[in-house]
Amino acid sequence: MIDLHLIGIGTGNPDHLTAQAVRAMNSADLILLPRKGSAKSDLVDLRRTICAAVLTRAVRVVEFDLPVRDARGDYLGAVQDWHDAITQAWAGQIARHLPDGGRLALLVWGDPSLYDSSLRIADRLAERGLAIRVSVVPGITSLQALTAAHAIPLNRLGAPVVITTGRRLRDDGWPADGDSVAVMLDQGCAFDALDPAGIHIWWGAYLGMEHQLLIEGPLAVVRDRIAGLRAQERARHGWIMDIYLMRRGA
Amino acid sequence: MIDLHLIGIGTGNPDHLTAQAVRAMNSADLILLPRKGSAKSDLVDLRRTICAAVLTRAVRVVEFDLPVRDARGDYLGAVQDWHDAITQAWAGQIARHLPDGGRLALLVWGDPSLYDSSLRIADRLAERGLAIRVSVVPGITSLQALTAAHAIPLNRLGAPVVITTGRRLRDDGWPADGDSVAVMLDQGCAFDALDPAGIHIWWGAYLGMEHQLLIEGPLAVVRDRIAGLRAQERARHGWIMDIYLMRRGA
Ligand SMILES: C[S@@+](CC[C@H](N)C(=O)[O-])C[C@H]1O[C@@H](n2cnc3c(N)ncnc32)[C@H](O)[C@@H]1O
Ligand SMILES: C[S@@+](CC[C@H](N)C(=O)[O-])C[C@H]1O[C@@H](n2cnc3c(N)ncnc32)[C@H](O)[C@@H]1O
Repeated sequence: MIDLHLIGIGTGNPDHLTAQAVRAMNSADLILLPRKGSAKSDLVDLRRTICAAVLTRAVRVVEFDLPVRDARGDYLGAVQDWHDAITQAWAGQIARHLPDGGRLALLVWGDPSLYDSSLRIADRLAERGLAIRVSVVPGITSLQALTAAHAIPLNRLGAPVVITTGRRLRDDGWPADGDSVAVMLDQGCAFDALDPAGIHIWWGAYLGMEHQLLIEGPLAVVRDRIAGLRAQERARHGWIMDIYLMRRGA
Repeated sequence: MIDLHLIGIGTGNPDHLTAQAVRAMNSADLILLPRKGSAKSDLVDLRRTICAAVLTRAVRVVEFDLPVRDARGDYLGAVQDWHDAITQAWAGQIARHLPDGGRLALLVWGDPSLYDSSLRIADRLAERGLAIRVSVVPGITSLQALTAAHAIPLNRLGAPVVITTGRRLRDDGWPADGDSVAVMLDQGCAFDALDPAGIHIWWGAYLGMEHQLLIEGPLAVVRDRIAGLRAQERARHGWIMDIYLMRRGA
């Protein structure tokens, strides 16, 4: 039996770890750290730093290479293939390092519930016949890091919030229920597809990290500044992760 | 100058506190603990327990009574009056206990960004002319406690999420962008207003607490069980807080 702990670690600030996360890491038999290719090596480094900072026992930590998603063709199809390949990679590591079962921990960026594939991969492992029990340790999300950094509420008083992706925003426009709209997984400035009139934006990149960036203002005024800074910093670091919240009539 | 720290403490499990929250509590000159009337005294007790568990310095902790919201009449109007009264109460405590300024900490249930009035109260204090600087320490929300307890993702692959209130769900029905719909602040089973066909629900109450309750299943099958358990437990404890996630065609 594999006792899998998906542990949310926040989005870059090791201080965002909860006591529960620290405990779950220390009680693991094995922590698997996926490597996502050299561009994002900062992110593996951060997981290593977190392990070094919070482990008080000699827990075995094993790094392994994650397959890369095919950027060509149909998005959802490519994601399915990619999840198959990740499942394969996890299964291989488990067979090799925990052949008799035990407590396996995975450090998940932000919170495991939010736009993350780990829970889906765990389901696939179970479907393949692996005896697996999954526990989730929540972590601070990038959306919370954004609202905290700007010191703003997520919702307007009594009003709904839509969380969506850059792809959806570009394809479908402003959501019908959108009083407050949070956008993640944006390949690049999907807000450009909107009429900016009356929209206020709170944008953040590298949240919780040393080189955190924040811009806030009417979309019509700040969108070029965001696009410029985003391109520049992306070139400088080799990668970027950004997220934003917008309100209409704010 | 008042340096106000709004510190998210999670929703009942002291283990959900982050290292940042513990540090912010310990570096405060004053922690104010609002009392919300006797029915919810468990919740003040929990804040006291958290203070006792994590304070390593002799930080001054002062309890004070929060005004109660008028349950009659127009909702948004009553909330505005209530926020005025809370602002007044905070201002009084600050004048009394931090007349020369300093670091003031407030322990906010869950995360300060999510359906919480503290940031709005801080704005009102600033509008009244108080010199105040606000920092936010994110905390694990009840929504994360829900998805973690059920070990489920918040969103479907690449799809949006709507977070809304019981009032909105009852008044407006299933949200137009609703692939996954999370409902908070429900006075009682607003899902009853929906046609349950094809809807799956993951429900939780007292999340993170000793008497946590979870129910999951097709809405048509489990809704009466949720309503019954909710009424029973509410009567037993004198209060209830519950939250749920629904997906259509799941
Ligand atoms: C695959 S999702 C994972 C989200 C993560 N599970 C969470 O809870 O935040 C990656 C997206 O999260 C957002 N994100 C994650 N970390 C971020 C950070 N440090 N700064 C800004 N955005 C971030 C970006 O929108 C990015 O495209
Ligand atoms: C005023 S809002 C505050 C939310 C809080 N800021 C958060 O981040 O979760 C209160 C609502 O949160 C949800 N909630 C808070 N704590 C909860 C708990 N322990 N279990 C279930 N629901 C909870 C309920 O929907 C409740 O009506």
